[in-house]
Amino acid sequence: MKKNSLSNVKYHDFVFAQKEPFLLENQETLSKVNIRYECYGKLNAEKSNAILIIHALTGNHHAAGYYKDEKVPGWWDNFIGPGKALDTNKFFVLSSNNLGGCSGSTGPNSINPLDKNGEPYGLNFPSITLGDMVKMQFVLMQHLSIPCFHTIIGSSMGGMMALHWSVHYAKYVKNVIAIAATDAQNSQSIAFSEVARQAITRDPHFKEGKYYQKNKNKENGPKNGLAIARMLAHITYLSDLSMRRKFGRKLNKKNQKGFVLDVEFEIESYLRYQGAKFTDRFDANSYLYITKAMNYFNLKDGFKNLEETFKMSSSRYLIISFNSDWLYPTYMSKQLVEAMLNAGREASFAEIKSDAGHDAFLLEKKELTILIQSFLHGVTEKWK
Amino acid sequence: MKKNSLSNVKYHDFVFAQKEPFLLENQETLSKVNIRYECYGKLNAEKSNAILIIHALTGNHHAAGYYKDEKVPGWWDNFIGPGKALDTNKFFVLSSNNLGGCSGSTGPNSINPLDKNGEPYGLNFPSITLGDMVKMQFVLMQHLSIPCFHTIIGSSMGGMMALHWSVHYAKYVKNVIAIAATDAQNSQSIAFSEVARQAITRDPHFKEGKYYQKNKNKENGPKNGLAIARMLAHITYLSDLSMRRKFGRKLNKKNQKGFVLDVEFEIESYLRYQGAKFTDRFDANSYLYITKAMNYFNLKDGFKNLEETFKMSSSRYLIISFNSDWLYPTYMSKQLVEAMLNAGREASFAEIKSDAGHDAFLLEKKELTILIQSFLHGVTEKWK
Repeated sequence: MKKNSLSNVKYHDFVFAQKEPFLLENQETLSKVNIRYECYGKLNAEKSNAILIIHALTGNHHAAGYYKDEKVPGWWDNFIGPGKALDTNKFFVLSSNNLGGCSGSTGPNSINPLDKNGEPYGLNFPSITLGDMVKMQFVLMQHLSIPCFHTIIGSSMGGMMALHWSVHYAKYVKNVIAIAATDAQNSQSIAFSEVARQAITRDPHFKEGKYYQKNKNKENGPKNGLAIARMLAHITYLSDLSMRRKFGRKLNKKNQKGFVLDVEFEIESYLRYQGAKFTDRFDANSYLYITKAMNYFNLKDGFKNLEETFKMSSSRYLIISFNSDWLYPTYMSKQLVEAMLNAGREASFAEIKSDAGHDAFLLEKKELTILIQSFLHGVTEKWK
Repeated sequence: MKKNSLSNVKYHDFVFAQKEPFLLENQETLSKVNIRYECYGKLNAEKSNAILIIHALTGNHHAAGYYKDEKVPGWWDNFIGPGKALDTNKFFVLSSNNLGGCSGSTGPNSINPLDKNGEPYGLNFPSITLGDMVKMQFVLMQHLSIPCFHTIIGSSMGGMMALHWSVHYAKYVKNVIAIAATDAQNSQSIAFSEVARQAITRDPHFKEGKYYQKNKNKENGPKNGLAIARMLAHITYLSDLSMRRKFGRKLNKKNQKGFVLDVEFEIESYLRYQGAKFTDRFDANSYLYITKAMNYFNLKDGFKNLEETFKMSSSRYLIISFNSDWLYPTYMSKQLVEAMLNAGREASFAEIKSDAGHDAFLLEKKELTILIQSFLHGVTEKWK
């Protein structure tokens, strides 16, 4: 166990929409919705020190510390804990699994309470948006009697949701940190998502999303399609440079060219491993719903332009990009900051030099810690 | 039919290795090898005006003009014909389908002459390299009694093969034009190829490459996997900018978010169409073999470095890249040119400004024509 990491972390479940259904953006509803979450640190008496951390596409509520007997800590443990960027000696940090996910919060793999046979939703799960995911976090906030978040922080999809919070729930969030995020995916990102979805739905084991019961051949679900989707996504999370440095053109066997289907280049075995590992932890239907929600997301929806959008907000912003991130390149972050400033918002911007591509938000511990700590210090001073 | 395009084009077949087998780089052999090719223009009396054009990954021998009753001309018709960049009034232009392809030259879908049941090779086809493909072109050259090529030109994989010619068959080529090419693919390209191969081989209709006979369900081959492979590759052929301009975030239905599996964004239907179209014209086994050959290719193999490699050559070079090509970015072309110059070669370099990405080699008619014509004019003057 790493020192300065939290131990004996526990998750909690909160079920809501038991009487009144939860209304989604497309006017459909969900009943008996579960939200799984974790908290780190203590809420102070004034309830003024709550930070919401929002996970990316395939993340979950377990952002920091170790469960009892766990070997690997939560996904952003580098940044959450005593003395870390999100200092749990000072802040109460809240993390929940997003709506539509597959780690405890209600999603396509949850039992559909309206189904007579008690089957999971599968493709009967309604189409959701990042706005719906944010709305579910808002329900949790009310449940925990948090009047306002000191800061909402997220990377990638989590950053997109943090921006959405600041525009649509302006009085409930004072500060926003959005890392490697965008106001709307570009055509190329939508295209990659579509190839991933095609790989999943064309897998014969997809069975229109009804794959949850293992059949007699013990096949359960479109594992090949989901692995292809993950391999593809994984390439977009890295950079040309990081791949060159890590794998280059190295062959497993020394310069021996083999059979056409052999795994020969190191990058090949790395990708196959990543693909296989992913299918053990993620649900294919969740992947379809959440990637589609990301494609839909456009912060400007309902507004004339991005500048008008940020006029709705009262947050202070810290926007961070990485120079080798080609999924959400720096120009996207700069567009955000320009619109924020034009709208009269306070916004700081930093581009971190990193070879790690989009994945840098998990890796660049030193630089990110300095930026986040300085920002939190500055805004907390102002707020007092 | 476009004016200035050749009409009544015909292809030819040449069978070789009927007595002596064709020896491959991996020491395996092929017997009774067919090479399908086309010629445009006339070989002059001195046999000094022959140009070899080499196609890219999924291209074929039909580079220019129209077959009888054909509606769409060959794939580089913009550049080959009377008065065009490769002027058929001046030059004899030769184009052949690469070894391992599926358009007439011997490949995995050809009948294996050693198979007792007369079945196609499938995965019994030997592992091939771009060097083997070049060697087959060399056989064709001898068959046609061409003593030396005036110029060898190719884009993408074709450009890589043109470079290989100049190093390994130095006295048989005077000039080389390599467009959007590289001396070796980077890790990212190998990674994309691997995802494509995984999509094909994990398709249950792949059946270890033995899918050539239609079964009772009329399924023939891993069409889904091949379509996924093509969709993915297609993204890498375009650029972020060209996709933004062409598709942006446009939805088919007006801003109506639909069912999770609906085709909604225009880029989605475009990619599905491209994927489906490709499966009608290309063989999945060929895709496996040729992408692997591209991954293997390293012009420096057997040499200390790239500079030493080009010391083997006596060609003059024109190297062209496109600023929005992120598959074989400009830095790769510059590396080539630097090594050529250090090796004492004559080399010209141009980066064409284009939004079209890697695909620009098919599209940038005006700029490419000027560059190619000037180069051919210059080197022909010198040669006389």
